[in-house]
Amino acid sequence: MTLFEKSEYLTRVEKTKDRMEKAGLEVLFVSDPANMNYLTGYDAQSYYVEQAVILALDAEEPLWVGRKMDIACARFTTWLSPQNMMGYSEDMVQSRLKHPMSYIAGLMIEKGMGKKAIGIEMDAPHITPRSYEVLKAGLPDAKFQDARLLVSWVRSIKSPAEIALMKKAGMVVNRVMQAAVDTIQVGVRECDAAAAVVHAQVAGTDEFGGDYTSHMPFFCAGKRASAPHLTWTDDPFLNETNINVELAGCVRRYHCPLSRTIYLGKNPPKMLADTAQWTIDALNAELEAIKPGVTCEQVDQAWRKAISHAKIVKESRTGYSMGLGYPPDWGEHTCCLRPGDRTILQPEMTFHVISGIWMEDWGFEISESVLVTETGYELFANFPRQLIIKGQASK
Amino acid sequence: MTLFEKSEYLTRVEKTKDRMEKAGLEVLFVSDPANMNYLTGYDAQSYYVEQAVILALDAEEPLWVGRKMDIACARFTTWLSPQNMMGYSEDMVQSRLKHPMSYIAGLMIEKGMGKKAIGIEMDAPHITPRSYEVLKAGLPDAKFQDARLLVSWVRSIKSPAEIALMKKAGMVVNRVMQAAVDTIQVGVRECDAAAAVVHAQVAGTDEFGGDYTSHMPFFCAGKRASAPHLTWTDDPFLNETNINVELAGCVRRYHCPLSRTIYLGKNPPKMLADTAQWTIDALNAELEAIKPGVTCEQVDQAWRKAISHAKIVKESRTGYSMGLGYPPDWGEHTCCLRPGDRTILQPEMTFHVISGIWMEDWGFEISESVLVTETGYELFANFPRQLIIKGQASK
Repeated sequence: MTLFEKSEYLTRVEKTKDRMEKAGLEVLFVSDPANMNYLTGYDAQSYYVEQAVILALDAEEPLWVGRKMDIACARFTTWLSPQNMMGYSEDMVQSRLKHPMSYIAGLMIEKGMGKKAIGIEMDAPHITPRSYEVLKAGLPDAKFQDARLLVSWVRSIKSPAEIALMKKAGMVVNRVMQAAVDTIQVGVRECDAAAAVVHAQVAGTDEFGGDYTSHMPFFCAGKRASAPHLTWTDDPFLNETNINVELAGCVRRYHCPLSRTIYLGKNPPKMLADTAQWTIDALNAELEAIKPGVTCEQVDQAWRKAISHAKIVKESRTGYSMGLGYPPDWGEHTCCLRPGDRTILQPEMTFHVISGIWMEDWGFEISESVLVTETGYELFANFPRQLIIKGQASK
Repeated sequence: MTLFEKSEYLTRVEKTKDRMEKAGLEVLFVSDPANMNYLTGYDAQSYYVEQAVILALDAEEPLWVGRKMDIACARFTTWLSPQNMMGYSEDMVQSRLKHPMSYIAGLMIEKGMGKKAIGIEMDAPHITPRSYEVLKAGLPDAKFQDARLLVSWVRSIKSPAEIALMKKAGMVVNRVMQAAVDTIQVGVRECDAAAAVVHAQVAGTDEFGGDYTSHMPFFCAGKRASAPHLTWTDDPFLNETNINVELAGCVRRYHCPLSRTIYLGKNPPKMLADTAQWTIDALNAELEAIKPGVTCEQVDQAWRKAISHAKIVKESRTGYSMGLGYPPDWGEHTCCLRPGDRTILQPEMTFHVISGIWMEDWGFEISESVLVTETGYELFANFPRQLIIKGQASK
């Protein structure tokens, strides 16, 4: 059973075909699992082997191709007709002698795509250089063109059904961040707090379950808070320590990321407290700048202007579009809130607006996930926007 | 602080250089996060952006290159000297105008690698066709060669320190599978059982914490058990249903996978009970065939011979080498237990020996993770090897 109505998928296919036509493409070879899911509903943890959704301008339905045993996964999750699910045999899986892309190329020739203009997602996750080379070699008369982000740009504007799921993910992330705040205490091991977090992520709410997230929770305590992408350790949390927590709620692959910094101890150091205040003020200013018609760099500029009085140097972006995703990323790789990105905000875009401050031996993080509305923005989560101070646990 | 002694990493680098010399390579460009970790210790969830470990035959230390902010992650997790950690600027991250690989190519020219024979992991996760093309364009005088699996083959033989970690992962997976068995009951939502599982994975034991696993748990109940790679739903478990559970324990990125089928109800259907018995007998025969000197296909053959009396058609492999891994896979992609793989088993290889039977509208799974010893094999986990029957919960 598919997640959305068939009409929703048909609309997505039509929008994708429009972009294909404009780009001069007759066939689109979709490798990004998020884009495969977007067009067909396909949802399985099978992206460690070669697979693709192939959309031809002159075909009504896309074609799903993967490992033969995963056709069963396609049957359970996509709206496609059985004849549009094709599988390669087991001797091609992680083989030193055969490659699934030669099967897929042969199939494309059979389907009349051998001389077409074919778009490839050249920078998508889960397509390798060898896959591309074998595919090209198997389709010597085709014209290849980079079509990276073509579907991702369609995805950047969410439908009402997608927004409803992201609101659910927001409800999940409220609980998930609360689980982190409740569990992080002096003497508790980082892994035990992380365990409470992943439990809350997957359990979801009483009304709907949660999904796994494209990034596992980032837990960076003490000096490790200077590094943005570490996970938990076995060490107990110490008193007078700050912990950066970045995580998400996820419902049916739709994410709502959120980050907060927690301080264990009664009195955070002045530098941390000041940075928190400056950064939250800047995040507030940035959120207020969000509305249709402004550019991504204008939104980012609001953050930079608001914090310019402080001696904080931040080279990295202050947000990015996100939503549907598979490991390794919940970001869509389309819009970035940073200098130079002149993409114009439109209603139904969704962003993770994140202020990460990573210093020499400490750090501070705060973020919100937002929907761009007709007049401004709306938050997906609802969690106190502050440095969370937990006085030392009485022992 | 690195996970292993520096001497362990130096040994790995030497073994890798030996293979590079035999392959005629002067430089190895390592993209697989598991291989990057293996050579340097690097462990961060940053593989959603471009990064690499570059090993030159004539250099003592490998070079880590990634996003500038992730140098902090390298400082916390690798044994490399600070001058061997290089980062590209933020304007290259997911940019439409610039690509990190052009920075990396420039750096390689600076380091005197511009005219070298360079090995690329052409089929590794987390290197895209575009990354490869930009790298090649930036190094027009280099000779490129496919070096996929070169490091993975070094990894296939585990050190005592690695085996110790995998034994810990075995202790974790015992608890994780028990959490699944305890939680899966009639009326419990699949997501709530999955939540208990991920909690147990991350919490680990009282002595050491757990890590996130490269695959999230596979939970396939009822008819969905015919599909190998689905995750959980929000639905409650029903009476008289079988559930395929495949999951792992993981400690510091080292995995111990395990699968079992659970039946809810007093009397499993005869076909399921018979299949379970035949398959477990075949798995036992396969395990007994494991010892140094035999080939992968001989081990697989023992399974096929033992089950030949039953009318079970299984095209897929009955096991694969595994250990260190990042999403999307805990498999090493080197040895497969299947016809045609004549790799000779050696002591300290590690396999997930898995009998997955996926039929038209049901399925059965059982597996063990094993270490090849001097004389045979040793199990990493210790969990009853049977169809687990849970009589209907009294309500």
